[in-house]
Amino acid sequence: MKMNDMVIISVDDHISEPPDMFKKHLSGDDLASAPQFIVAENGTSFWEYQGMKMPSVGLNAVVGRPLDEYGMEPTALEQLRAGCFDVKARIGDMNVNGIAASLNFGSFPGFDGGRFHKAPDKAKSLVHLRAYNDWHIDEWCGAYPGRFIPCAILPTWDIKATVEELKRISAKGCTTVSINENPTVQGLPSIHNEYWEPFWKAVTDLDITICLHIGAGNPAPHASMETPIEAWITTMPMSISTGAADWLNLSALQRYPKLKIALSEGGIGWIPYFLERADFSHSRHQFWTNSRMNFREDKPSDVFKRHFMTCFIDDAFGLKNLDSLNEDLVSYECDYPHSDSLWPEVPERLFDTLKHLSDAQVDKITHGNAMRFFRFDMFKHHPREALTVGALRAQAKADGVDVTPKSSGGAAPLAEGEKPRIITSGDLMRMFSHHAKAA
Amino acid sequence: MKMNDMVIISVDDHISEPPDMFKKHLSGDDLASAPQFIVAENGTSFWEYQGMKMPSVGLNAVVGRPLDEYGMEPTALEQLRAGCFDVKARIGDMNVNGIAASLNFGSFPGFDGGRFHKAPDKAKSLVHLRAYNDWHIDEWCGAYPGRFIPCAILPTWDIKATVEELKRISAKGCTTVSINENPTVQGLPSIHNEYWEPFWKAVTDLDITICLHIGAGNPAPHASMETPIEAWITTMPMSISTGAADWLNLSALQRYPKLKIALSEGGIGWIPYFLERADFSHSRHQFWTNSRMNFREDKPSDVFKRHFMTCFIDDAFGLKNLDSLNEDLVSYECDYPHSDSLWPEVPERLFDTLKHLSDAQVDKITHGNAMRFFRFDMFKHHPREALTVGALRAQAKADGVDVTPKSSGGAAPLAEGEKPRIITSGDLMRMFSHHAKAA
Repeated sequence: MKMNDMVIISVDDHISEPPDMFKKHLSGDDLASAPQFIVAENGTSFWEYQGMKMPSVGLNAVVGRPLDEYGMEPTALEQLRAGCFDVKARIGDMNVNGIAASLNFGSFPGFDGGRFHKAPDKAKSLVHLRAYNDWHIDEWCGAYPGRFIPCAILPTWDIKATVEELKRISAKGCTTVSINENPTVQGLPSIHNEYWEPFWKAVTDLDITICLHIGAGNPAPHASMETPIEAWITTMPMSISTGAADWLNLSALQRYPKLKIALSEGGIGWIPYFLERADFSHSRHQFWTNSRMNFREDKPSDVFKRHFMTCFIDDAFGLKNLDSLNEDLVSYECDYPHSDSLWPEVPERLFDTLKHLSDAQVDKITHGNAMRFFRFDMFKHHPREALTVGALRAQAKADGVDVTPKSSGGAAPLAEGEKPRIITSGDLMRMFSHHAKAA
Repeated sequence: MKMNDMVIISVDDHISEPPDMFKKHLSGDDLASAPQFIVAENGTSFWEYQGMKMPSVGLNAVVGRPLDEYGMEPTALEQLRAGCFDVKARIGDMNVNGIAASLNFGSFPGFDGGRFHKAPDKAKSLVHLRAYNDWHIDEWCGAYPGRFIPCAILPTWDIKATVEELKRISAKGCTTVSINENPTVQGLPSIHNEYWEPFWKAVTDLDITICLHIGAGNPAPHASMETPIEAWITTMPMSISTGAADWLNLSALQRYPKLKIALSEGGIGWIPYFLERADFSHSRHQFWTNSRMNFREDKPSDVFKRHFMTCFIDDAFGLKNLDSLNEDLVSYECDYPHSDSLWPEVPERLFDTLKHLSDAQVDKITHGNAMRFFRFDMFKHHPREALTVGALRAQAKADGVDVTPKSSGGAAPLAEGEKPRIITSGDLMRMFSHHAKAA
């Protein structure tokens, strides 16, 4: 295969929600009480909802800047590349990066919709969460059929409403949802509690995939405030291992053999070790943990390889060891517009780490696995030859998509004029806290 | 190489301290105020020190039991295999398991000596910590020259006393120390603070290796109290990744190029991924994090491969990918007497995962790397041929070391008569808390 012949689906990207997102989906009091995009007198912007301020308009949406501005937090929409919030511009940015289709998580509500969980008036939350899903599915993803895998959020504080919402979004063609991988941090029962039984049944009946995005339930810890921030950045994807182990031991996986879990932004290279370790732990400890009551004849690695989709941004070691994973459950993610994203050079970087694989394996990892797991038939809307890296980049060229880095500013980790030094976890915390106060 | 020709050093094992440990090393008030081993009326035992009770006498020291008792916490010395606290019996248990030499961490003070840090009267703590080191180095390790790598603990709450203790234990021939990998949890400045400068200088001047054992500073989180305990067991070794990333970004590694760090009980199979991720993070983020001020021309993986010793209990995937590690900095650990230990079948299991390697590589991993890194010349005391698996097991046979599993009881995760069910994190917490109250 040549680089330009790859067809790439990214299973983890992000949207910075546009200010008018609720306009077409609510009216009257419901619209008036919906999350509001506010521009403060000092020009900074934030979202406001039920008394909460969410200072970030872009949540590290730094794509398109020079690399030395990747640590600055956008404080106004004008500081974002338009592809972050404008779907037409997003398609241009996908084309220029050779991305055929993309699964997007939200920003201001949290990847798991957590803000709607924190809001005190849950009746309102439910109305606005549904409108959020309508916007996401119908307006954002609906604008370009076959280019976006819709991914809904759920009112899991109310399991009946959750099941209803699952049915509602499923009827719209949405096949994927994002929830918090550790609901106990939201004050809900753990995934091992019978509370979730109707949820497991509904997602299985409706054949819906559950996405667990890093950072929500078991976030990577900062070792100390003086720790250089690159330490934290390094450990972020692997922080999903706590959740992966928790979910791997979920007895619902035995009761619902068709449950599908996607570990979003978790990387792949550490997983063969993790599976060997899970099998070792099970083989040594099952005699007192009684875990055979759950795993029965399976090893934990068997369960993982049946139920869990993994993905990677840049992971040569994992791809070198594809034979220690299930090659039918490995997928690619771009992480646009966050600072780890290799936009607009994804095809070059990805091809370099895939080229030892067969064409069939490349097809699986670049798009085939994602199409099957998320039940997303993009070829119904576009012929394959229109979605290759080469075809999409030709389109971007014809459309004049400009990828020149643009300086755009925002909140900075160092004070203006401060002497350059290594940025620490404390610096990042202070930047966010200062910006939050300013908002 | 044949299995019986291997010479094995384990760089991570544990001692359950014997009741009379301070007798030969203190007198008068110092002995009277030292940690006391108490046997309560109900027969359970605990250590008491400066108003603190440490209910565990064995800290998961379950070796030699039937596997279905591996979750029970020993509450009395009689429930432990003698090799846990009796050095002569320990040598027998090492022989029967083909272990030539062993590096031991303590139990009641914590692997990092943390109990001496928590004690209110630090002047006393210093006296007793020194006596602890004397016992460990002179009495335990000294009983069998060439069979133990001494590993001291330090009064790092007082950096001047720490430097003095380093000189003192170094003069006794001790080449290794164990500290908390995240001193901020002890209320001390982070490793990035200038507080530690005299420490870096002293360990470098004295050529002493720093051990960071999992569990002290950045313990593996329990996802929820309802989470099956095997999830937590699975993630324990990899929990060292937070500390590994923190220490990898330590600027002292540039100022002291001979600093040596051992990641104790951290496993190896996930590390190639971790290094690739660290390099990726550095390559993408250095332009705003200013981390080039630290790493200069190095990649983070270069720094790791110069300074960090890794070890494994059972890690076929890591050994298969030895070419993605530094084969001069990989070592073996047995974890006797904890529940992950493969005693007494280590040679069989280890040989099975090493047999694809050259004899030179096997020698490095089984003992050569540990001998160099910890400056431990066991061949000065014993000829190689006396320390092979075959020779040690023949000795054990002659000595009649009995490995028959023995039921010995202790605190149990389920109440007596309770119907078997999958043991959770909450069950373990309750077991320890109930036992602590009983003490």
